Amino acid sequence: MSFADKLLAASRRNSSWLCIGLDPDPELLPGVDVLQFNKAIIEATSDLVCAYKPNLAFYEALGTEGFGILEKTLTYIPTDIPIIADAKRGDIGNTARAYARALFSVFGFDAATVSPYLGFDSIEPFINYRDKGVFILCRTSNRGASDFQDLCTDGRPLYEAVARKAVEWNVCGNIGLVVGATYPEELKRVRSICPDMCLLIPGVGAQGGDLASAVGCGADARGENAIINVSRQILYASREKDFARAARTAADHIRQEINSHLPPRPGAE
Amino acid sequence: MSFADKLLAASRRNSSWLCIGLDPDPELLPGVDVLQFNKAIIEATSDLVCAYKPNLAFYEALGTEGFGILEKTLTYIPTDIPIIADAKRGDIGNTARAYARALFSVFGFDAATVSPYLGFDSIEPFINYRDKGVFILCRTSNRGASDFQDLCTDGRPLYEAVARKAVEWNVCGNIGLVVGATYPEELKRVRSICPDMCLLIPGVGAQGGDLASAVGCGADARGENAIINVSRQILYASREKDFARAARTAADHIRQEINSHLPPRPGAE
Repeated sequence: MSFADKLLAASRRNSSWLCIGLDPDPELLPGVDVLQFNKAIIEATSDLVCAYKPNLAFYEALGTEGFGILEKTLTYIPTDIPIIADAKRGDIGNTARAYARALFSVFGFDAATVSPYLGFDSIEPFINYRDKGVFILCRTSNRGASDFQDLCTDGRPLYEAVARKAVEWNVCGNIGLVVGATYPEELKRVRSICPDMCLLIPGVGAQGGDLASAVGCGADARGENAIINVSRQILYASREKDFARAARTAADHIRQEINSHLPPRPGAE
Repeated sequence: MSFADKLLAASRRNSSWLCIGLDPDPELLPGVDVLQFNKAIIEATSDLVCAYKPNLAFYEALGTEGFGILEKTLTYIPTDIPIIADAKRGDIGNTARAYARALFSVFGFDAATVSPYLGFDSIEPFINYRDKGVFILCRTSNRGASDFQDLCTDGRPLYEAVARKAVEWNVCGNIGLVVGATYPEELKRVRSICPDMCLLIPGVGAQGGDLASAVGCGADARGENAIINVSRQILYASREKDFARAARTAADHIRQEINSHLPPRPGAE
């Protein structure tokens, strides 16, 4: 089953375009270890999401044990929920092949984020895994995004050049784009360039992006294909013993708010 | 001791601007495991290099054991030889902090490569480690580099805009740039924008870059600050039992060839 099919099935089953970023920061955990924390968050929320997205930085920061903890975390996620490796990898051909093998074959992720700076041959080894999703960074949610992504190239900003190249490269139909919720006008612009592409949209919650405009500008014409990622607002909804329950409440609230900004889906609650 | 001082000391001690990329590909190893291979390569070459550069992709591709193998590999490298993590990381602020902590505090690398696409706040957490070196991708050695890096932004190619920003951001003096040997004209251009900056230059050997022009265009006015990285041409000089001896011969040959294109150093052999 392709990533797109798995994502759509999970989204429809759970009536959700919410993705939870599994980014555990040991300094913020409420008296449990990282693995216990991830397990509790997943058990409390897996019927409310369309995907999970662990950011590999938080596992690398745990040292040599980190990837073992990541691997165990993945086993707690129901097999019908797709998992996106937020890795933002980008390297030359033979190295990109090693990264793609690591993420897709070794760890078994369903999708990964990649950086466009090195161009097509840095992305090709990922898209060659045709059943996997590949999200290219386009217009990111952070303040520094404008340093290069907004530079005018041939009459349009660099992030638009990336979006156009992504359309050209999408011969296997498995490319998506990362576009931050913090810049709704840019999000709308990318959606107009890529009307059918899946967009991964971080930046609501702790980063300050507005959910209504993220959903309104990011969803496609059918009200689909906009994955809204939230990490800290859900993971650390409470920093007490009731963290999992609080995470569920926060996740359900965001899920419903996303849905309230989408056209109603036939047969959906 | 800063990365720059450690690098210069190693370079002068070994009369070498050669960096060996420790990128072990299990399919190419001559009947030894990755750790044995790395240990033998390091023991055979540590008096011939100015630095080692493991690319993290090759360790991630080994699965959950990979980072343990990387950590053990680092212990084989003499403490006076700097180690560059070729990671090409680039993420938003709190995630970039986790990556910087992973590479510099947890693994103890002396320097790391980072991607510029997300702008200043993705790089700031790295340069805040003032004793560590931070190499920003500028003009890479691969074919696809031209897809975005050569796009004209405000009258100059994107890679030049990156080089200029790197100069502006280099308030701690610990920023360097990655510029591929495969594009000597671009390398010369970057050197003219950044006359004093350390350049990390991959792309000679298997990738086809010319060593003479890499050294000629990449070295600064004193004939220094140009780290020439070679991986496959040394690691796989022989794929038989004599691989370590062959690696030493190849490394010494390249080291001497680099030196032959540099102005003679006072007191150097």
